[in-house]
Amino acid sequence: MKSYRIALVPGDGIGRDVTDAAWQVLERAARGAGFGLEGTAFPWSCAYYKETGAMMPDDGIATLRGFDSILLGAVGWPAQVPDNVSLHGLLLPIRKAFVQYANVRPHRLLPGVTGPLRKTDFDILCIRENTEGEYAGAGGRVHRGGPDEVAVETSVFTRKGVERILRFGFEQARRRTGRLASVTKSNAQKYSMVFWDEVTEALAPEYPDVTVTSYHIDAMAARMVMAPESLDVVVASNLFGDILTDLGAAIQGGLGYAASANLVPDRSAPSMFEPVHGSAPDIAHLGIANPIAAIWSGAMMLEHLGETAAADAIMAAISATTARGIGTVQGREKTGEITAAVLTALG
Amino acid sequence: MKSYRIALVPGDGIGRDVTDAAWQVLERAARGAGFGLEGTAFPWSCAYYKETGAMMPDDGIATLRGFDSILLGAVGWPAQVPDNVSLHGLLLPIRKAFVQYANVRPHRLLPGVTGPLRKTDFDILCIRENTEGEYAGAGGRVHRGGPDEVAVETSVFTRKGVERILRFGFEQARRRTGRLASVTKSNAQKYSMVFWDEVTEALAPEYPDVTVTSYHIDAMAARMVMAPESLDVVVASNLFGDILTDLGAAIQGGLGYAASANLVPDRSAPSMFEPVHGSAPDIAHLGIANPIAAIWSGAMMLEHLGETAAADAIMAAISATTARGIGTVQGREKTGEITAAVLTALG
Ligand SMILES: CC(C)[C@H](C(=O)O)[C@@H](O)C(=O)O
Ligand SMILES: CC(C)[C@H](C(=O)O)[C@@H](O)C(=O)O
Repeated sequence: MKSYRIALVPGDGIGRDVTDAAWQVLERAARGAGFGLEGTAFPWSCAYYKETGAMMPDDGIATLRGFDSILLGAVGWPAQVPDNVSLHGLLLPIRKAFVQYANVRPHRLLPGVTGPLRKTDFDILCIRENTEGEYAGAGGRVHRGGPDEVAVETSVFTRKGVERILRFGFEQARRRTGRLASVTKSNAQKYSMVFWDEVTEALAPEYPDVTVTSYHIDAMAARMVMAPESLDVVVASNLFGDILTDLGAAIQGGLGYAASANLVPDRSAPSMFEPVHGSAPDIAHLGIANPIAAIWSGAMMLEHLGETAAADAIMAAISATTARGIGTVQGREKTGEITAAVLTALG
Repeated sequence: MKSYRIALVPGDGIGRDVTDAAWQVLERAARGAGFGLEGTAFPWSCAYYKETGAMMPDDGIATLRGFDSILLGAVGWPAQVPDNVSLHGLLLPIRKAFVQYANVRPHRLLPGVTGPLRKTDFDILCIRENTEGEYAGAGGRVHRGGPDEVAVETSVFTRKGVERILRFGFEQARRRTGRLASVTKSNAQKYSMVFWDEVTEALAPEYPDVTVTSYHIDAMAARMVMAPESLDVVVASNLFGDILTDLGAAIQGGLGYAASANLVPDRSAPSMFEPVHGSAPDIAHLGIANPIAAIWSGAMMLEHLGETAAADAIMAAISATTARGIGTVQGREKTGEITAAVLTALG
């Protein structure tokens, strides 16, 4: 029997509740489809930091490298550990170390879920560059604390980085309706975004079956709200993708439904799958977190591992659950009840 | 009789249609309120560029300095002049030369306007830093055109720049419901945004009557769509404010209703008022542009000049017009018809 080794990093707060839930569903789906899943849990988190002084051990990345995929819950507990320490000590190093350059997030309404928009008919795949750009971490501060202080933060875009994420975008568009929206702000950012536009133009002839259109980030944010049905695949930089995918989560009914994959498209290292939501310390351990985003992320993991039938079965079970009105109103059911409903639907 | 000197810069495309409309309304309101408005029009635009090789004459800024305010339509005609030339030759230099550091944009639904959200009850005032930050224009490219090319774009935040926009935000919050939302991304941008947060914290004690809350830009974008009623005054950097105000325009029904002021709060130089929309070359000169955003911007100008009664009268006339269903469906009425309805309502 084929079997996959999965590293489970539940992290903090509700990350643990929803990773548990997703794992139950994944195991059931694997059994149904006849493949194995071997999970190994790692307690890396803010609690771990309080104990050890690090978010993960020195050989954490080396350890994860041996796995087929990583399933992550959520990282952060700001009251105990500053975000700058927790995120930069666990979530972001994993994304960067394995060069999980394609952060993929689907945005559509599940049946039975009421979103904030009047329009309900959209199906957007956002692709966010995940390794460089505005979150390169380059910068500094001078005259610190004084009246003349200046803080600079430098976005760094490499041709390699921009090209590979755009290629990934073109390829996804090709597999869907052939429409790719590339997001920039080249009328105000003359170096980084003009460069992004140039790389897009240079690649376009290689994908004659894809129609690529460039939008400014401000116009794209408005479009996602006014005409989401006009969009298919959207590719954007680290920051712009970060913003657009939270907006995408909003229009699909909230973070409870926002799944994500941090992909290494050529599979040279493990990819990581995580719900977009955070650790929500205020509702941690109450057992009321909606696990759907985590379960959906798990389905994306199976898809990436090549287990498409099992992934489809999970998506069908999620849809059957929300169509019955389960998991569609915040706080009405408990995490366990929603998970049980998905398991039942999975058969 | 008190009189104000207004520089009119209609610019390109529908900028001309809507500036005309706004000017008619402003003149009528001024007559009603008993003050004078002396308008001087400047043809600076892409057409002007084609003729002269510059978007405005060398002494353009010096000329504008003599006016009480500037009313601008829209700048840009990408098919003829690249945005990098047009915007950086006219719109952006004016904002920067006069240090119009507070870009103010109100977002609420006018009566009779149907927005894209199910929720309709919100009233947000977005304040965008307008002179530095992510649009500082600092950056460069190395190994240009080659496989190893790197493009960098540096955001520059000065204490002076951050402090003054935050103070303006605190003051506006004080005049409204006392709630200020400050937008950053300090978990991923460790220099610029951590600095912004520190300045916010340092100023907060000076405004004990204001409650300031920090949000990440991604969470704020989602909040504007999911819970816009929870927001009052929102203050953000140049880029974040740019994005949020287009989103604000979207939730208020579109760019046809989005007004803006580029303010010099201490009045040491002229402020500029402009609709948020662009020049829309595709519908230029068809006389079908919605002038409401430009008229609303004109009302903001009168407010800034201290003519509150006339400003209020214009806002009441706009509301009376849209409440009758005029100007609420794109393309149903012509620019002239909507303007006529506002003039009639103004009495
Ligand atoms: C927590 C934060 C650093 C992270 C990011 O911006 O990448 C999150 O917002 C996300 O979207 O995954
Ligand atoms: C045209 C462009 C440079 C401008 C900006 O980003 O400032 C516009 O988007 C705006 O919001 O006023």
